[in-house]
Amino acid sequence: MVQQVCIEPGQVRKEAAIQTSAWVYHFYIMENEQEKHEYYMRMALEEAQKAREIDEVPVGAVIVFRDEVVAKAHNLREHSMQAYAHAEMLAIQKASESMHTWCLDECDLYVTLEPCMMCTGAIVLSRIRNLYYGAKDPKGGAVDSLIEIKTISRLNHHPKVTSGILAEECGAILTDFFREKRKKPKRDKNQFKITQE
Amino acid sequence: MVQQVCIEPGQVRKEAAIQTSAWVYHFYIMENEQEKHEYYMRMALEEAQKAREIDEVPVGAVIVFRDEVVAKAHNLREHSMQAYAHAEMLAIQKASESMHTWCLDECDLYVTLEPCMMCTGAIVLSRIRNLYYGAKDPKGGAVDSLIEIKTISRLNHHPKVTSGILAEECGAILTDFFREKRKKPKRDKNQFKITQE
Repeated sequence: MVQQVCIEPGQVRKEAAIQTSAWVYHFYIMENEQEKHEYYMRMALEEAQKAREIDEVPVGAVIVFRDEVVAKAHNLREHSMQAYAHAEMLAIQKASESMHTWCLDECDLYVTLEPCMMCTGAIVLSRIRNLYYGAKDPKGGAVDSLIEIKTISRLNHHPKVTSGILAEECGAILTDFFREKRKKPKRDKNQFKITQE
Repeated sequence: MVQQVCIEPGQVRKEAAIQTSAWVYHFYIMENEQEKHEYYMRMALEEAQKAREIDEVPVGAVIVFRDEVVAKAHNLREHSMQAYAHAEMLAIQKASESMHTWCLDECDLYVTLEPCMMCTGAIVLSRIRNLYYGAKDPKGGAVDSLIEIKTISRLNHHPKVTSGILAEECGAILTDFFREKRKKPKRDKNQFKITQE
C-alpha cells in the first residue's frame, strides 16, 4: 500500500532552496579559512552558552576531523564534581570515543578560552594537529600566558596554535558571567548565628 | 537456630596475633613518615605492576585522605583508547567520585613517575595537598623536569612536592618494560609485500 503524502509545490521549492543554500553556505565556509574558523568557534561559543545556562564557567570546545565535527563539549566541573571536566578534556574524550583512538593527529580543536595546563597537556598527548582558541587567559592559560608551550622544545608534540578567533565574544561571555556572579548577594555569614539576648 | 562453629583454641590465638600485629604494623607505619610514604608508594608500584601485566606503560597512583586510601589506579591509555587515561588522572577521578567533590585539598597523591603536564595541571586544579613521586621523567615530567611548577608563581595552587620515594624501584619497572619492548621482534614490513617473480 502506498501512503499518500500531500506536499504543496511551494513547500517543496522552499525546502529545496534551504537545502541548496545550506550546502552553498557550507561550501563557501570551508573554502574560506577565516570564515571556517569563525564558524567552528561560533559552535564552541554555543557550547559555552550551554555551560552558562547551568551556572558553569562558560567555556566551550569543538573538535573537527576532515571538516566534520566529531565532538562538542562544555565545562561541567561543578555538575560532574570533577576537576578535569573542562570543555577541552571532555571534547577530547568524546572524539577518542567516536574515532576509537587516543591519537587525534588529524583533528583540530576549537576552544573559546586559552587552555589551562591540564588541557594543554592533554592536547599534546592526544597529538591534536591545530589548536584554535578565542580569548587569552592571563591567569591560567598554559599555551601563551603562564607557560609558552612553543618554548618547551623537548615536548614530543607541538600543535599549531592560532589565537584570537572571535576573541571579543569569547571573552565577553566570561566577563558577563563573572560580573553577574559578583552582583549576586553574598551569603550572610550571620544568618545562622545564635545570639544571646 | 544457633549455628555451631568449631574453632580450636590455637586457631583463635593465631588469628588474634595476626590481627594485632597488623594493627601494630599499621600504627608503626603511620607514625614514621618515611615508612608511611614507602608503604603507599609500594601500593602505587603494585598498581604499576597491574599495568605492566596488560602491556600498558607501568605507572601507578594512589590517593590518600587522612591515612585512608580513597583511590588506586594505573595507566590505561591503550585499553581505554584515551590519551588522558594516565594513572594520576584516573586516581583523581576515582577520588572525586568517592568523596563527592572536585576539591581534594586534604588528599595526598603517590605516583611512581613524575607527572606529565596534563597530570600536573589536574593535580593543581584538584588542589591536591601533597604530591609524592618516585622516579624523575626527564622527557615528559612537568613538576621538576620540562617545567618546574614551583617557578610558576601565578598558579592558583602549588602542591607540596616530595620526589625520589622508592625512585630506583619505580624507575626499574619502566626500564624493564621498555627493554622487553625493544627485545620483541619488530613487525616485518615486507611480510605483506607482493613480490613479482
